[in-house]
Amino acid sequence: MTIDASHTADRIRLGMVGGGQGAFIGAVHRIAARIDDQFTLVAGALSSDPARAAASAAEIGIPSDRSYASYAEMARAEAARPHGIEAVSIVTPNHMHAPVARAFLAAGIHVICDKPMTLTVPEAEALVDLVAKTGKVFVLTHNYTGYPMIRQARAMVAAGELGEIRLVQAEYPQDWLTEPAERTGSKQAEWRTDPARSGAGGAIGDIGTHAYNLAAFVSGLETEALLAQLTSFVPGRPLDDDVQILLRYRGGARGMLWASQVAVGCENGLKLRVYGTKGGLEWTQADPNYLWFTRFGGPKQLLTRGGAGAWPQAGRVTRVPGGHPEGYLEGFATIYAEAARAIRAARTGQPPDAEVIYPTVQDGLDGMRFIAAAVASSQAGNVWTSLA
Amino acid sequence: MTIDASHTADRIRLGMVGGGQGAFIGAVHRIAARIDDQFTLVAGALSSDPARAAASAAEIGIPSDRSYASYAEMARAEAARPHGIEAVSIVTPNHMHAPVARAFLAAGIHVICDKPMTLTVPEAEALVDLVAKTGKVFVLTHNYTGYPMIRQARAMVAAGELGEIRLVQAEYPQDWLTEPAERTGSKQAEWRTDPARSGAGGAIGDIGTHAYNLAAFVSGLETEALLAQLTSFVPGRPLDDDVQILLRYRGGARGMLWASQVAVGCENGLKLRVYGTKGGLEWTQADPNYLWFTRFGGPKQLLTRGGAGAWPQAGRVTRVPGGHPEGYLEGFATIYAEAARAIRAARTGQPPDAEVIYPTVQDGLDGMRFIAAAVASSQAGNVWTSLA
Amino acid sequence: MTIDASHTADRIRLGMVGGGQGAFIGAVHRIAARIDDQFTLVAGALSSDPARAAASAAEIGIPSDRSYASYAEMARAEAARPHGIEAVSIVTPNHMHAPVARAFLAAGIHVICDKPMTLTVPEAEALVDLVAKTGKVFVLTHNYTGYPMIRQARAMVAAGELGEIRLVQAEYPQDWLTEPAERTGSKQAEWRTDPARSGAGGAIGDIGTHAYNLAAFVSGLETEALLAQLTSFVPGRPLDDDVQILLRYRGGARGMLWASQVAVGCENGLKLRVYGTKGGLEWTQADPNYLWFTRFGGPKQLLTRGGAGAWPQAGRVTRVPGGHPEGYLEGFATIYAEAARAIRAARTGQPPDAEVIYPTVQDGLDGMRFIAAAVASSQAGNVWTSLA
Amino acid sequence: MTIDASHTADRIRLGMVGGGQGAFIGAVHRIAARIDDQFTLVAGALSSDPARAAASAAEIGIPSDRSYASYAEMARAEAARPHGIEAVSIVTPNHMHAPVARAFLAAGIHVICDKPMTLTVPEAEALVDLVAKTGKVFVLTHNYTGYPMIRQARAMVAAGELGEIRLVQAEYPQDWLTEPAERTGSKQAEWRTDPARSGAGGAIGDIGTHAYNLAAFVSGLETEALLAQLTSFVPGRPLDDDVQILLRYRGGARGMLWASQVAVGCENGLKLRVYGTKGGLEWTQADPNYLWFTRFGGPKQLLTRGGAGAWPQAGRVTRVPGGHPEGYLEGFATIYAEAARAIRAARTGQPPDAEVIYPTVQDGLDGMRFIAAAVASSQAGNVWTSLA
Repeated sequence: MTIDASHTADRIRLGMVGGGQGAFIGAVHRIAARIDDQFTLVAGALSSDPARAAASAAEIGIPSDRSYASYAEMARAEAARPHGIEAVSIVTPNHMHAPVARAFLAAGIHVICDKPMTLTVPEAEALVDLVAKTGKVFVLTHNYTGYPMIRQARAMVAAGELGEIRLVQAEYPQDWLTEPAERTGSKQAEWRTDPARSGAGGAIGDIGTHAYNLAAFVSGLETEALLAQLTSFVPGRPLDDDVQILLRYRGGARGMLWASQVAVGCENGLKLRVYGTKGGLEWTQADPNYLWFTRFGGPKQLLTRGGAGAWPQAGRVTRVPGGHPEGYLEGFATIYAEAARAIRAARTGQPPDAEVIYPTVQDGLDGMRFIAAAVASSQAGNVWTSLA
Repeated sequence: MTIDASHTADRIRLGMVGGGQGAFIGAVHRIAARIDDQFTLVAGALSSDPARAAASAAEIGIPSDRSYASYAEMARAEAARPHGIEAVSIVTPNHMHAPVARAFLAAGIHVICDKPMTLTVPEAEALVDLVAKTGKVFVLTHNYTGYPMIRQARAMVAAGELGEIRLVQAEYPQDWLTEPAERTGSKQAEWRTDPARSGAGGAIGDIGTHAYNLAAFVSGLETEALLAQLTSFVPGRPLDDDVQILLRYRGGARGMLWASQVAVGCENGLKLRVYGTKGGLEWTQADPNYLWFTRFGGPKQLLTRGGAGAWPQAGRVTRVPGGHPEGYLEGFATIYAEAARAIRAARTGQPPDAEVIYPTVQDGLDGMRFIAAAVASSQAGNVWTSLA
Repeated sequence: MTIDASHTADRIRLGMVGGGQGAFIGAVHRIAARIDDQFTLVAGALSSDPARAAASAAEIGIPSDRSYASYAEMARAEAARPHGIEAVSIVTPNHMHAPVARAFLAAGIHVICDKPMTLTVPEAEALVDLVAKTGKVFVLTHNYTGYPMIRQARAMVAAGELGEIRLVQAEYPQDWLTEPAERTGSKQAEWRTDPARSGAGGAIGDIGTHAYNLAAFVSGLETEALLAQLTSFVPGRPLDDDVQILLRYRGGARGMLWASQVAVGCENGLKLRVYGTKGGLEWTQADPNYLWFTRFGGPKQLLTRGGAGAWPQAGRVTRVPGGHPEGYLEGFATIYAEAARAIRAARTGQPPDAEVIYPTVQDGLDGMRFIAAAVASSQAGNVWTSLA
Repeated sequence: MTIDASHTADRIRLGMVGGGQGAFIGAVHRIAARIDDQFTLVAGALSSDPARAAASAAEIGIPSDRSYASYAEMARAEAARPHGIEAVSIVTPNHMHAPVARAFLAAGIHVICDKPMTLTVPEAEALVDLVAKTGKVFVLTHNYTGYPMIRQARAMVAAGELGEIRLVQAEYPQDWLTEPAERTGSKQAEWRTDPARSGAGGAIGDIGTHAYNLAAFVSGLETEALLAQLTSFVPGRPLDDDVQILLRYRGGARGMLWASQVAVGCENGLKLRVYGTKGGLEWTQADPNYLWFTRFGGPKQLLTRGGAGAWPQAGRVTRVPGGHPEGYLEGFATIYAEAARAIRAARTGQPPDAEVIYPTVQDGLDGMRFIAAAVASSQAGNVWTSLA
C-alpha cells in the first residue's frame, strides 16, 4: 500500500546475466523487478550457451540486439551505447558471481547479485574494494530481509523492545536433497552439490548463509566466532547437506544455527528466534505475515503484517492490507524496490534515504567469511573459529 | 514455476478505468497484471476528477495523450486508434462497473471487471447478453479463485475425492467496520456503506459474494435457495455489516455462509470447508499455501502448494517452489494470466484451452442474484428465497 | 495448581448409575471424580443387566453389597444405610436421566447428571421443580464449561472486555457418523441415533447442546428465538446428523450454530467465537489451553492457561503450570470439583461461594428448550421459534 | 479408553517422600497416581520439617500414624508393618533422590523417582547396582515418555517408518528464569539454581535431561559423544540457565539440543524432531495430541491421538477419544500405570509384559552421564566428550 509509485514513468534500465530457460531464480528476479514497476528489463546474457541465450531473450521480450552471448560483451556494449542499462542482475551459479560483478562494476553499471557472493573470501574482499572504488550500488539478494515482519523485527530489536539480546536461534531445514537428486537429473541439485560451481560449502552456502544473514540483520549482532559441524549424509556427495553451528556474538550473546537439505518434511523452513532480557521474537518464512512477540511478563502477541501491531518499518514495504498475505515474491520485490531507491539516489550523486535498507557487498563478505569459518571449523574437528 | 513466459514479448495492451491516486484496488490490479508480464498498461481514465486522472496517469507512466477525462471518451478513442487497447480493467466503485463495461464491450474491447459486477440483477442480465452478443472476453476478478490450492480443491472435488458433497461452510469475517469508519474519513468505508455506490448490499456485496463464489467454484454446486439474515450493527449504517445465510444446493447439499465487517480480530478471514461422503477439505485465505484434506478413515493431510501432495491444477498457477509462500497478489495475477490466455485465444478466434479457468459474466450474474435473494430473504423475515 | 486439597481426607461418598463395562462416559466420570480427590466411589448400579452390573462393580472396586441391580433399589438402600452415598453420577443413555435423577433427589441424594438432561421439556421442567423442592445440588455435566480458558472467556465478557456482544459463532463438527456406524456394530452410534433412547434430537442433543450451552456460558446472553435446519444425511437415520441454526439473543446480538456428525476430518471440533463492540475472542476445544483475544485496534493476543495473560478465574481451575497442557479430563474434573464445593457447602446448609460455577438444572431445561425449539423450527420449515 | 481397570479393587499401597505443602511436583504425582486408579496413597514423609509433614499429610488424608518425620523412619516402619507400602514416590529436590531411593530399595520397597536421578554419576552407578541386587522395580518419571504420540513416534521409528535416522533436533525452552527469580522469593527457582540441591547442572539437569531422554526414547539411538556450551545469562547465577549441545550418535546420526530458562515467550516448549532417510517426525509438548509425519515424497500428515493414523502403541495409553485432548497429567499418569503393571508383575515374580515401557534406573544413569559430560565439555572449552 505504501510502496510509492513515483517515477515508474522513468523506469531503471536493467540487464540480466544468467536466468535463461530452465533456470529458476532468474524468473523470480524478473517478477520481483516488475512488481513495483521500477525497472524495465532491456538486455541480457541469459545463458552461457549462445543459442539458449537468444531463445531465452526472445521469449521474454528482450530485443535481439541486446541479447548477448557473453557477459563481458554485454558489459562492454551496454556501457558504450546511449541509454544502456543502468543496473545488472546476476543470477548465475555461484562461481560466476564475482567475475560478472567485476565486469559490470568496472563498466560503471550498478549490480544486483545473488548470494553467496563469491566462491572465496579473497574474491569477496576484492569485490568490497571494487565497489568502494567505483562508487556503484551493489545489492546482494538476501531476499528474506525484504519481508515486512522481518523489517519490523529488526526495528523492534533496534528500538530495545527485547532488551539486551542473549540468544539467537536460526534454522533453515529443507528436504529436497534427501536422496541423491544430483545423480537423477536435477540441474538445481547438480550445481549446488558441485564444489566447482558452488564453492566450498553446500547447504551452508545455499541456505546456511541466508539463515546467518537473517540472524545478523534482525539481531544487529556481530559474530565473534563459530563452531561448526558439517555433514554429508548422502553417500558420495562432495559438499555438506547438513550444518550444525554454535555461535558467539560480541557482547556475550550466543546462537545456534541449523541448516539442512535432508530434513524430511521440511520445504523451506527458515525460522528465526531472538531472545533478550526483556522480550522474545519468533518468525517463520513459510508464514511470513506473522511475527510472534512476547514482552517478558506479558501475553504473547501475534503481530500481523498490516495489522494493529505493525510498525512503520513493516508498513513501508507492504503492498496489500493485513489479512491478505504477501509472500516470497513480494519480499524479493522489496529488495528490488530498495535497489531502485539507491540507484535513483545515485543518479543524483546522493546516498539513499536512511530508511532504505538492503544487503550490501559487506554483507556478502560477511557471508563468505561465515562459510569459510564454518568449513575450517568443521575440518579442524569442530573448534571455535574466528570470522575476522 | 510453470507460468509460461511465452509471448511476453508481445504483451496485451491494457487500459484501466478507476484506480487513481488514493484508491487501493487499482494498484493491486496493476501489480497483478505485471507479475506474469502478459500486459502493458498504456491508457487510463483513472479518476472521474480530470486533474486527478492526469496526475495519476503521469505517476504510473501512462502517456498524457492516453490519459482520459472520462471512460466514454477513452472507449471511443482507444477503439479508433491504431494499436489501441485490447482490454480494459474496471476498478471503480460498484455503481460504475456496468456502464463502463458496456461502453468498452460495445467498442470491441475485452473487459476485466471488479465485483460485484453490477448494482442490480437486470443490469447483470443485460451484461450477460451483451457479452454473448459481442463475443468479447469478460473476466470478473473473483481473485480468490486464482489461489493454487483453491484450484486444487476444485479439482479434487471434481475428481470425486470427497465423494458426494453434503456440506459447505463458507465465511469471510473482517473487523474494519466495527466502528463507523465511514464517518471518520475512510474513503473505502464511505463508498462501501453507501447504497448509491455499493448497491443494495454492504458486507454481502463486498465480501459475501466472494465467499459465495468461492464455495460454488470449489464445490461445483448450484444454489437452489437461501435464507438470509442481514444486520447493520453500527447504528445509522444504511447497509448490512453482517450476513448470516443458510444455503440449499441442488442435489441435497446444504451450506452456511457468514460474512461480517464487525468481527473484532478478523482481518480477511475468508475460509472454506467442504465435506462429502468420502472426504473433507479446509482452506483459509490468510494461509493460502495450505489445503487440509482428510479422506474418511484416513489421517489428516496438509497439502502444500508445490509440495508432494500438490496436483497439476495447482502447479499450473504456481510461480515459486513449495515452502516459499505465494499470496494475494499472485492469486490475483493468476486471474490476469488466465485473462491473457483467453484474450490471446480470442485473437485467433478460438476458445482458450480447457484448463483455462476464470470467473465469467455468468458468475457475475450469479453473484448479483445471490445478493438480491439475500436482501429479499432478509427483508421478508428470513424466508427461503430462490436464486433463479 | 490452585485446586485446594482441603478436606480430601473427608471425601464425598459417591454412587454411579450406568457406566458399566463397554461404556465410555462412565470411565470419564470416574477419572474426573478422582483427579481432585474430592470423591470416593462406593456404590453403583452400573448396568441394567445385573450380571454386567456386578462384574463391572467388582472390576472397579465397588463392594459387592453396594452394587445394585437397579437404580431404584440403589436409591432406596443408600438413603437408608448409615454413611450411604451423598451424591450420584448419572451416566446412562439420555432416556434414563430423568427417572434416575428423580429417584435420587427424592431420596435426598445430590445429583451429577449427564446431558441432555431429559427426553422432553416437560420432564425437564418437572426436574427443575423437584430440585427446588428438595434443595439438593444438581450438577449437569456440560463439561466444556470446566476448561480454564472458557472460565476466563466468560469472565472477560462479564468484565466488559469485549464491550456489548454482537455476534456469537459456535460450532461442533465431528465425523464419526459419516457412514451408518449404527448398523455396523457401534453401540455408541446405536443409542445416539435411536429416538427412544436419545429423544427427538440426534446431533443437536448430543453435541449441539454443548455448543449452545457453551455459547450461553461465555456470552452471558439469553436466547430469544432460533431458526433451525436439521438434516439426516445418512439414508435411513431417524435423527439429525447435521444442524444449522441462526440465533437471536435478547438485546440484539445474533448467532450461528453448526453441529455435525458427518464433517469428514473433524474429531471433536467444538469452537466458540464471540465478538463485541470492543473486542473478540476465539477458543477451540481441541487446543483448549489457548484463548485468542483481540481488543479492537490492538494486536492479537494468545492468552495461555497459566501464562501471563491468564485471569484468576482460569487459574482457580488449573492444576499445572502454563505450557503443560491440561485437557478434556481436567476440564471434566473441574465440574466435579465445583460439585464437591457445592455439596460441602450444602452439608452446612450454605450456598457455595460466589466463585463456584457449574451447569445447573436450569441450564438443563434451557438445553431441552433449545432442542425442542430447533426440532420444531426445522419441522415447520425453518421458521423463527421462541425458546420460552 | 484402553486403560484397563482390572485390579483397581486391589490398589497398590503407595507412600510419598517430599511433596508437602508448597511443593508443585508432589501434587502432580498424586493426581497422576489417581487417574488410572491403580494406587492408594497411605503413607508419607512429605517434608523435612516435621510440622509441615504432619499438616501436609492431614490435608491429603494420610493417617497420622503413617505420616513420618523422616524418610528413613518411614522406610523402616513401613517395611516392618503388615500391609505396609509396596512402592514409594520420591519427589524431593534432586540431592535427596539417591539417599531416599537407597533406603526404600534396601527395605524391599519399589521406587518411583523424580529426575535427575542423583547428583553424581557414581551415585547413579551405585543405584543401578542396588536395583539389580534388590530386584525391585525402579521407575524414573521422565513423564514426557508417557504421551501417546511419543509412544507412537517411538514405535514408528522402531518399525522403520523413518528409515535410518540421520538427525535429531531436541529443544526445551522456558522463560521463567529470565530474571533472578531465585532472589525474589521463588522456592522453585531457589533450589533449582543451587548446586547443593540441584547438582552440577541447572537448566541441563532440570529440562535438558528431559529433552535428551525424549530424543533417546523416540530415536532409539545411543549417544557416542557430545559437545556442550553451558551459559549462565543471569549475573550471579551459579548454574547454567542455557544449554547448547551438539550430539553424535552411534551409527552416524547427529543431533542438536537446546534447553533454556531465559527464552522469553516460551513456557514449556519441549519439542522433538527426528529425520531419517525415509521420513520425518515432529512433536511439541504444548500440543501433545498431534504428531506430524512426512514420508519422503508424500504429503505431510497430522496424526492425532485417537484419530485414524494412531497406532496401537498410542491407543494403549489413551483414555479419551480423538479430538478430546489429553495433557500433561495423563502422560504422567501413564508412567504410574506402567509402574503399576511392573509392580503387579513383580508380585508374581514375573517381568511385566513386553509392551510395558517406563524409564528405568539405567535411563537415570544415562541422564547423569549426559549432565556430567555436558558440564565437562563446557568447562573444557566445548570439546567432544564421551558419555561412556
